[in-house]
Amino acid sequence: MAFHYPNGQPYLNNEVPQSKKQATRPKATTLFGKRGMSLEEELNDSNQYYRSQSMAVVYKKPTPIQIVKVDYPARSQAVIKEAYFKQASTTDYNGIYQGRYLDFEAKETKNKTAFPFRNFHQHQIEHFRACLQQGGICFVIMKFVPLQRLFLLPASELITRWDAQADGARKSIPLEIVIKQGYEINYQLNPTIPYLSAVDQLIAYQVKRSN
Amino acid sequence: MAFHYPNGQPYLNNEVPQSKKQATRPKATTLFGKRGMSLEEELNDSNQYYRSQSMAVVYKKPTPIQIVKVDYPARSQAVIKEAYFKQASTTDYNGIYQGRYLDFEAKETKNKTAFPFRNFHQHQIEHFRACLQQGGICFVIMKFVPLQRLFLLPASELITRWDAQADGARKSIPLEIVIKQGYEINYQLNPTIPYLSAVDQLIAYQVKRSN
Repeated sequence: MAFHYPNGQPYLNNEVPQSKKQATRPKATTLFGKRGMSLEEELNDSNQYYRSQSMAVVYKKPTPIQIVKVDYPARSQAVIKEAYFKQASTTDYNGIYQGRYLDFEAKETKNKTAFPFRNFHQHQIEHFRACLQQGGICFVIMKFVPLQRLFLLPASELITRWDAQADGARKSIPLEIVIKQGYEINYQLNPTIPYLSAVDQLIAYQVKRSN
Repeated sequence: MAFHYPNGQPYLNNEVPQSKKQATRPKATTLFGKRGMSLEEELNDSNQYYRSQSMAVVYKKPTPIQIVKVDYPARSQAVIKEAYFKQASTTDYNGIYQGRYLDFEAKETKNKTAFPFRNFHQHQIEHFRACLQQGGICFVIMKFVPLQRLFLLPASELITRWDAQADGARKSIPLEIVIKQGYEINYQLNPTIPYLSAVDQLIAYQVKRSN
């Protein structure tokens, strides 16, 4: 009689030594990103893939730095000897996808039930507002680290809830709202974070709503 | 008998002391940008104006820096103690204007008759190519410093001439080509560099050509 795992795979008792069994055990169906990569690295990796396939041109902007002192040693490269991190005026990522301007921020939380607003700054909200007004596709890529779940949340939803804080609304977005208003992104091999599929859904929704 | 200046203004000899005359002499009709501002500062200033008027959302990207050593003095801000300038992978400016993705580089030359290609890098040309393929509006804002003349040159023209170098073509773009293929931008008060007017002309030309 053949035994099967709950996922339907047959159980084959081939007497493989325990050590080898460990190495060849079937891969989990959920890919948890490339091992040890941060959300930023995963996105850079995905953007590189999209560029290499001529699917989109998106980059993370460099971290803004206030340079105070630079040394120019003879015959060698300039060395920055004193500099400070500056607050960015915009979001971290932007670029072009099939004629459309994309603008987004990537954030992760250790929270399991809601995404706290302290992850955002007022100037990022204002930047989203300005880009939306010009017709940009704006969103946040949110990662709930303990759940290993990733979502694309439209910036319009973030802005509505951010603004409601002033009227005493809660200072975070509940996971169930992110699930309802956002688009879940499942990790895969290449690109690691296939966010353009979620962007397609967001565009389709916007087109439908505007008709 | 009334005397007039060549510009039609009447000559009024009111015996103003020499020092005061200097201060109130009529402004030149050509504005040479805000005094002492570099092309980058003039563009940042213009972008700020465009953002404040909700006309476009365009920023210069921060200079990419490779950070090697950071100190965290107690109770104060992190200090970068060793860092190096990195080569940028993209152009310096991008953003959104009326639903369109803008991507451009700003360069100046001391040359009076041609714009040398040594002002550009291969990766910038490739970046332009990729953005054009996605439907972006890509260009260079070129300043001939000795002539105090500014032009918007479409990236497509730059790419064609850059590629022709391999076949032995010249290593610069003659001024007469820039005049013919580009759009001249005249300095004004606000914004200092009204480049969106030239962008409108470029878009109109592209729309006409594609019909």
